[in-house]
Amino acid sequence: MIAEVYIKLKEGVTDPEGEATKKALNLLGFKNVKRVSSVKVFRIEIEGVSKEEAEKEVEEMCKKLLANPVIHDYEVRWVD
Amino acid sequence: MIAEVYIKLKEGVTDPEGEATKKALNLLGFKNVKRVSSVKVFRIEIEGVSKEEAEKEVEEMCKKLLANPVIHDYEVRWVD
Repeated sequence: MIAEVYIKLKEGVTDPEGEATKKALNLLGFKNVKRVSSVKVFRIEIEGVSKEEAEKEVEEMCKKLLANPVIHDYEVRWVD
Repeated sequence: MIAEVYIKLKEGVTDPEGEATKKALNLLGFKNVKRVSSVKVFRIEIEGVSKEEAEKEVEEMCKKLLANPVIHDYEVRWVD
């Protein structure tokens, strides 16, 4: 099983990487770019457990390590 | 229009962030995690051009800035 965990910055939290990328794209002549936001994705391969168990474990992984609840929202998608 | 650009490391290219995340998860007790790979996603908001023009521009952005052709593969998804 493969879980894709999307880690996004919460609305209102500054996104230095996104802002720097936007500036660079505008400098390169891409004037139609209005906003860039950066998202981190972790593809996690899990074996040896049921789907239900894996879902619980990934939620725990997000809470314990992958996402900082103060600045991040996260979303889990399963790749079958 | 919003384009999501997925930047993945090519097969065989080492993924320090993915490996470090896997080790950390295993240390936290998540023994069923067999592999972790990290993916960068840029959400790019584009205005004032046709979809066709925007598609061409995003391809150029990938080639000029967002993806290093030696180590990255990239994929563009459109969010309508």
